[in-house]
Amino acid sequence: MELWLISLLAGLTSIAFAVYLFFYIDRQESGSAKMREVSAAIRDGAIAFLKREYYTLTAFVAVMALILAIFLNPNTALAYVFGSICSALAGLLGMDVALKANVKTANAAKKGLVKAFLTAFYGGAVMGLSVVGLALTGISILYYIYGDPNIILGFSLGASSLALFAKAGGGIYTKTADIGADLVGKVEFGIPEDDPRNPAVIADNVGDNVGDVAGTGADLFDSYVASTVSAMILGSSLERTAIQYEVYTVLPILLAAVGIFASILGTLFVRVKEGGDPGVALNRGTFSTCLMFVFFSYLLIHFLNVDLGVFYATTAGLVVGVLVGITTDYFTSINRGPVKKTAEAAKMGAALNILSGFSYGVISIAPTVIGICIATLMAWYFAGLYGISMSAVGMLSITGMIVSSDAYGPIVDNAKGIAEQSDLEPHVIKIGDKLDAAGNTTKAISKGFAIGAAALTVLALFASYSEIAEIEAVGLSLMRPDVMIGVFIGAAMPPLLSAMLILSVGRNAYRIVEEVRRQFREIPGLLQGRSKPDYVQCVDIATKGALRELSLPCALSVITPLTVGFLLGKYALGGFLVGSIVTGMIFAVFMATAGGQWDNAKKFIEEGAIGGKGSDVHKAAVIGDTVGDPFKDTAGPSLNTLICVMSLTASVFVPLILEYSLLKWSI
Amino acid sequence: MELWLISLLAGLTSIAFAVYLFFYIDRQESGSAKMREVSAAIRDGAIAFLKREYYTLTAFVAVMALILAIFLNPNTALAYVFGSICSALAGLLGMDVALKANVKTANAAKKGLVKAFLTAFYGGAVMGLSVVGLALTGISILYYIYGDPNIILGFSLGASSLALFAKAGGGIYTKTADIGADLVGKVEFGIPEDDPRNPAVIADNVGDNVGDVAGTGADLFDSYVASTVSAMILGSSLERTAIQYEVYTVLPILLAAVGIFASILGTLFVRVKEGGDPGVALNRGTFSTCLMFVFFSYLLIHFLNVDLGVFYATTAGLVVGVLVGITTDYFTSINRGPVKKTAEAAKMGAALNILSGFSYGVISIAPTVIGICIATLMAWYFAGLYGISMSAVGMLSITGMIVSSDAYGPIVDNAKGIAEQSDLEPHVIKIGDKLDAAGNTTKAISKGFAIGAAALTVLALFASYSEIAEIEAVGLSLMRPDVMIGVFIGAAMPPLLSAMLILSVGRNAYRIVEEVRRQFREIPGLLQGRSKPDYVQCVDIATKGALRELSLPCALSVITPLTVGFLLGKYALGGFLVGSIVTGMIFAVFMATAGGQWDNAKKFIEEGAIGGKGSDVHKAAVIGDTVGDPFKDTAGPSLNTLICVMSLTASVFVPLILEYSLLKWSI
Repeated sequence: MELWLISLLAGLTSIAFAVYLFFYIDRQESGSAKMREVSAAIRDGAIAFLKREYYTLTAFVAVMALILAIFLNPNTALAYVFGSICSALAGLLGMDVALKANVKTANAAKKGLVKAFLTAFYGGAVMGLSVVGLALTGISILYYIYGDPNIILGFSLGASSLALFAKAGGGIYTKTADIGADLVGKVEFGIPEDDPRNPAVIADNVGDNVGDVAGTGADLFDSYVASTVSAMILGSSLERTAIQYEVYTVLPILLAAVGIFASILGTLFVRVKEGGDPGVALNRGTFSTCLMFVFFSYLLIHFLNVDLGVFYATTAGLVVGVLVGITTDYFTSINRGPVKKTAEAAKMGAALNILSGFSYGVISIAPTVIGICIATLMAWYFAGLYGISMSAVGMLSITGMIVSSDAYGPIVDNAKGIAEQSDLEPHVIKIGDKLDAAGNTTKAISKGFAIGAAALTVLALFASYSEIAEIEAVGLSLMRPDVMIGVFIGAAMPPLLSAMLILSVGRNAYRIVEEVRRQFREIPGLLQGRSKPDYVQCVDIATKGALRELSLPCALSVITPLTVGFLLGKYALGGFLVGSIVTGMIFAVFMATAGGQWDNAKKFIEEGAIGGKGSDVHKAAVIGDTVGDPFKDTAGPSLNTLICVMSLTASVFVPLILEYSLLKWSI
Repeated sequence: MELWLISLLAGLTSIAFAVYLFFYIDRQESGSAKMREVSAAIRDGAIAFLKREYYTLTAFVAVMALILAIFLNPNTALAYVFGSICSALAGLLGMDVALKANVKTANAAKKGLVKAFLTAFYGGAVMGLSVVGLALTGISILYYIYGDPNIILGFSLGASSLALFAKAGGGIYTKTADIGADLVGKVEFGIPEDDPRNPAVIADNVGDNVGDVAGTGADLFDSYVASTVSAMILGSSLERTAIQYEVYTVLPILLAAVGIFASILGTLFVRVKEGGDPGVALNRGTFSTCLMFVFFSYLLIHFLNVDLGVFYATTAGLVVGVLVGITTDYFTSINRGPVKKTAEAAKMGAALNILSGFSYGVISIAPTVIGICIATLMAWYFAGLYGISMSAVGMLSITGMIVSSDAYGPIVDNAKGIAEQSDLEPHVIKIGDKLDAAGNTTKAISKGFAIGAAALTVLALFASYSEIAEIEAVGLSLMRPDVMIGVFIGAAMPPLLSAMLILSVGRNAYRIVEEVRRQFREIPGLLQGRSKPDYVQCVDIATKGALRELSLPCALSVITPLTVGFLLGKYALGGFLVGSIVTGMIFAVFMATAGGQWDNAKKFIEEGAIGGKGSDVHKAAVIGDTVGDPFKDTAGPSLNTLICVMSLTASVFVPLILEYSLLKWSI
């Protein structure tokens, strides 16, 4: 039987369902002219951003594909291009529907919570289902054509390249616009946030969609593909050694298929009553997806006569993923100790607020580290190296549901903004608030989930790298100087890259500041609201700047592993990957949480605690929030992708490194 | 021939020379009554701090010694107590002389630069020479008695325990007092910095001595002993395998002896002419010490008929140590790009100032990482694992000179303060400024040096751990889940411990704030300067709080490696040590540099740039500076010691772990 057909079927079903929901959203009404106008401005800005981004991206992908074709093989190059196209398609579809769903959600809110919630959630589900659908379809087709998971690594690298632009580029863009808009608008001219007179306001709104919808989608597309591919590679090596029915290679995509069916069924559980809690509905969706996945995956593994250890490994990954998501949420939740203490610290000034958020951010790495350790230990105990990669597959099986809930966030956030700017009635805005609050919680959980998933994924990638590079256990001994040096250099990369991204935001924000000042100076009557600012110019400057700033960190994440590999050899490169995984996870978690801490401490004060809005305590908290912006929305989330790119680059280029590395260490 | 006698002789010579300089300082005049009064207040506070600290310490040491005696052996326990006493003695002597030298330097400045400079430098040299003298004497005696470097590990652990209290405890204390004094004094009551009406002002002055003099001394005492001991352990294992004249074990202490003689001779090169640059004089001392060490160590190694590879390894360590010190200085130097950019960023508010300092701080890890990698690679190439430990010995050979120059810093800083508070003439204060400026540069360089030295030292400790634990190369493979988990947990420790220390500073500062407020409220006429504040109470609260806050991080740095070892076994513990070394170095460098960045950016603005003192830009920079205080003076410098304690705990307790660990992995 052709088992891979099941996964192709699952992929296509997912895409079909996404398209169905797309048209469902499209049929909904968009409300008044004023609402459509606000929505159209955001839409134009987002399209301007995407156009320029995809333009640069095409050049990047073309060059990389050429390099792959010349130095490795044309098939990997083809798979690479295919991977970047699939991820781009998912991003486009998701963004497009999100930009429609926001105004339609706002309009539906006039009729009540139920309709509005479903519009927003189905909007998010289009993204979630196209991500997993396109990813699994792509992998299945390539597996059918080549039958060799190593070629599919190219597909994964393509997806990672796209994620790099969407996540890191989008991350620079969104914080650039945010900080730039605030610095001149609020501080210099004293006009309120989101004021239409501010030339950077549309760039700011666009940023939320670009960073959160397209970025997170591309990030999880990336992890999803990478974990699946590395499990296939380790599976195919198992098959070479064991005389066994050929199923280990195809099992990862079968479990992914099970995950997709569970996610589609899970969306049916996402229902809310009038006056109910949308957060509970979203959680119900996630948990029912988890349960269904565990049940069906047990049946599948049992039916295929695979060792049950694999099932335990998969389940361990899934359970740990959810637990990490929930515990990370504790540190950023507005009702819990850490955020309240950080808010309290603002009483003694901005410095102590910042120190508190920083410290709790760092402390929050503990649950993730412990979770990853437990998952690794259990997975290895039950099914060896293959088990570790399968636990990543298990964790990422619910990606469809996670992305759906996550993309829901910015849709309702935008819907709320549109409702406010279009002066809708108070009860409509109240519904918007309720939808938005649920979005913030799921966003926090899915951030923790994404980091945990990325950590397990890169561990799996590291395992498959050792497999491809034919590394003996003793070769990666920490008692070897080359491995130790590799670990040191690798560990330095994530902090260095995040520092570069943060400096990028500062530089790019300065460009926006200059432009906004210029417009206020040169456009007569702008401050008085008598003429319109040139929104497009701001979007354009932010976009161009973001892409320019991206080039150095991008290049480094490809060049450094190659340099280490070609100079110091494959063992050093193995150490390099481990080093980058360890600090990558630490910095990703710390930056995400610290940013969330400061953000919510500010919100806590804005809700009236410790002096409330406008007080000195609030001003101190605003400084902390601004420090946190590039932490949580630029550097932190980009690290997942950067580490993934480094790992994939190592795995893809390892045949060349084996042949041409300068130092060839004897064992 | 009894070679160890040479090192005993060197140690005793060093102590004798330190005592000679001590009496030289003691003979100098202390100036007017006013000057003596200010000096006496600082002295009383420092003695109050030391008394309480040593009181707690004694209890801690007693308990640890009991544990060591019962579970391991009485000899290790004795060596442990001996180590803590030697380090404490060096600290006491150094602090005592520093507290005398400050006022005498201020007084000597009346007569000109030459005399003042020498008074301060000789004051520092007492600390420098007693540190290396007591350390080497202690090691030599133990080596004579037991002939077994493993027993000397206990001595090293004793020194580390003391360093923990001096460095981390002192670090919490000093920033507590600093932030506490500023928050109420400057912010709430608007009185200037260092104003005698502020009840916390003496605590603040005491803090500088406690953290910088005693702390850095204990820190380098710790690294010095640890690197020497681990080189001896690896040397003795070399002797067991090679049939060779027994010299590898004793060579580290012989080279240390050479380093001491070079340092003593080096002090003779530290001379300045009237109107000359004291910074140049200090550098001349350091470089001549380096050159003499290289020359004499070559002669020694040649004469002993040891492979020249060992000489190259030692020299590589020394060269890298100096280079790391210098390059790190670039990132914190007030005249260079990074600090200026961070100062510029303050124009856009405190948040961007903080982001800039943070980013450059992180980027500054690059030279240290590259330096350590080069030193490791060269040392290993020339002399294997033994070479790595010998490169640490080479780097630390100039410790005597480094500590001397470093302790000079707080002496002249205090001298300047005393001169200002005693209203000395402007030309005297100008000399104080000049001396102080030189002190700041050497401080930055020696901080970089201390971190580099600590990193190489813990690498050497890791190597000796593998030796003692009889770990086969394959046992530490990164492809083993236990090793990988060890790396993860180990890597999480330094960030976690630094976050705890930072939170400690916040909590303890709050206690000081309460006390200062209470005194202003309850002591009539205090704000008007009609009555005196209760300085001792503030010192006492800061001290008690600091020691209380210290207990959790202290306990964790002992308990975590033991837990990992007893639960997951010796291989996981090996991974744990590597993980902690890697992130320990990264966080130590990043925190030291970021703190230096913010500090100097503020100073740059205070010198009149970008708006100058009192402007909004300056206010923003002050916030950055306050964030940096616990980074650079508490958490950052404590990490060296904490990692050292973890490594030594692992090595000392490994015989028990081998026997009783829960998981016993097969290879």
